[in-house]
Amino acid sequence: MSNQLHVAIVGATGAVGIELLKVLARRNFPVAKLTLLASARSVGKELEFQGEKIPVQELREDSFKDVDVALFSAGASISKKYAPFAVQAGAVVVDNSSAFRMDENVPLVVPEINGADVAKNRGIIANPNCTTAITLMGLWPLHKAFGVKRVVAASYQAVSGTGAQAIEELRQQVDAIAAQPPREITKKVYPHQIAFNVLPHVDSFLETGYTKEEMKMQNEGRRIMHLPDFRASVTCVRVPVYRAHSVAVNAEFEQPVSVEKAREVLSSSPGVKLVDDPAQNQYPLPLNVAEKDDCEIGRLRLDCALDNGLAFWIAGDQLLKGAALNAVQIAELV
Amino acid sequence: MSNQLHVAIVGATGAVGIELLKVLARRNFPVAKLTLLASARSVGKELEFQGEKIPVQELREDSFKDVDVALFSAGASISKKYAPFAVQAGAVVVDNSSAFRMDENVPLVVPEINGADVAKNRGIIANPNCTTAITLMGLWPLHKAFGVKRVVAASYQAVSGTGAQAIEELRQQVDAIAAQPPREITKKVYPHQIAFNVLPHVDSFLETGYTKEEMKMQNEGRRIMHLPDFRASVTCVRVPVYRAHSVAVNAEFEQPVSVEKAREVLSSSPGVKLVDDPAQNQYPLPLNVAEKDDCEIGRLRLDCALDNGLAFWIAGDQLLKGAALNAVQIAELV
Repeated sequence: MSNQLHVAIVGATGAVGIELLKVLARRNFPVAKLTLLASARSVGKELEFQGEKIPVQELREDSFKDVDVALFSAGASISKKYAPFAVQAGAVVVDNSSAFRMDENVPLVVPEINGADVAKNRGIIANPNCTTAITLMGLWPLHKAFGVKRVVAASYQAVSGTGAQAIEELRQQVDAIAAQPPREITKKVYPHQIAFNVLPHVDSFLETGYTKEEMKMQNEGRRIMHLPDFRASVTCVRVPVYRAHSVAVNAEFEQPVSVEKAREVLSSSPGVKLVDDPAQNQYPLPLNVAEKDDCEIGRLRLDCALDNGLAFWIAGDQLLKGAALNAVQIAELV
Repeated sequence: MSNQLHVAIVGATGAVGIELLKVLARRNFPVAKLTLLASARSVGKELEFQGEKIPVQELREDSFKDVDVALFSAGASISKKYAPFAVQAGAVVVDNSSAFRMDENVPLVVPEINGADVAKNRGIIANPNCTTAITLMGLWPLHKAFGVKRVVAASYQAVSGTGAQAIEELRQQVDAIAAQPPREITKKVYPHQIAFNVLPHVDSFLETGYTKEEMKMQNEGRRIMHLPDFRASVTCVRVPVYRAHSVAVNAEFEQPVSVEKAREVLSSSPGVKLVDDPAQNQYPLPLNVAEKDDCEIGRLRLDCALDNGLAFWIAGDQLLKGAALNAVQIAELV
């Protein structure tokens, strides 16, 4: 590859696609040429990149000629179908979907944790689940200090994690409820009202009673941290927040823990910011991390129910660290 | 006491006070006379009870003459100051505040769990914290089946738990954000915007990093379940929901657990309803339990991170089972 790269974005018009454009520009990624790909119905749209209007093209098997880096963010079935064509054409694929995350031949990477795994790629590198990536940004430095055994977590996930339609659904429901007289709400994206409600249902249910989303922290966490025995029980909950996920985490470690040491290791960790001054009402809030690169961690305390346990609260923008930012960081390592 | 009782409500005009009136009427509590007490600034107001308008009187030391049952719901400092006068006048006090919950001479009661403790009262019976009461409604039947050791929980608490002003604050913030152009939001009740946000901050912070609210499940749970070694680590979070709390619970037991047995014991437990059919998108939702007496439990699954562990999700109306309903149930036992 030359220093200046031909970059393709698959799913350019989606919520994450838009963020990918912004992140590439903001981080001065060496883009020589940008190809925007999406489904046929987006053809005709133009997106702006560094002052230039770029037309959206239809994604096809032969879309990847001369492409150096292809950033996929259009769902697992699109990735499964088209990523092999991109690889065949010589591109390195960074895939934001769940398609290849559990494939042993595909590294699953959070650059701050296992950036070195990028070198093992055979053409595809997977970007982890958003809630997992955000939680691990706090958990990994603590693991290095104390050795993590297991995690119990509950998430507070924003509607933008579902996409642009979900953002609109929350907005419309809030408007309908506020109207005089109130209008009936419409539900297209979620099976129940999301406005002024919380839904313990993210992604589809497995036989075990967990959702797929809930198992990602254990399954993906094991691969990213190289910890085959890592256990994580998660409850994933959708909340009426527009942007940025939060997670309440209780983690049990091999070694004795201290809040002082935890603060110390977190303060010197890249990509995570310690916001932990309860006396001044300072703790991570989804509203504060929206559109920010760094995840924020706080509410650090010795776990009163687990020996060698720490409880904490972490929030991050799932469109950035949970998706677009992490993907571009991976591309920078390639 | 005669069969027909003279009942006093302290804090009659508050969010819980209003619910107390409704619950007394709905459950046909044998009210011979109802005295409504509040601060001086509520004097002049009238509240309706069974078709009759009853004037609100100022709470004073001599307000409890001939009162049989006094239901207190006006905050801990009011309870501490006035409950002794009610007891001195011969009334039994059911106190909804935190004032006496940890007092060894005061039974702390959830009727379905430790109703028998009511008999030990010396004039005052305490009503537990709302999130604790709701969680224990699911945990207690499971404890009887499997023997609970510890719990890790994260809450999703509605603004009505803070009171009528907080309901208004959420409504006003949503309106301000929806206005064209948006108006600046006002914050009086919470230190940060609650609309489209979540706040990991309920009640005040302790030296340990936990909030007072977060420690209630362990402290009050030990007294209610008579389990001095019970441990609970909780993260309490305020969410933009108007009414009803939800809790994600991971519980570790002494004995091996099964989901089938858990379903069986929960199905036959009073005050809790099993709503657990994920394939049909049926699980407890705060919107569905609002203004309902029963708590709803679902998302039952074997905990994948804890041996002998069960994960579940429970929702309940914190103004009812978390406050007014439980208080009237206690009064019925007296």
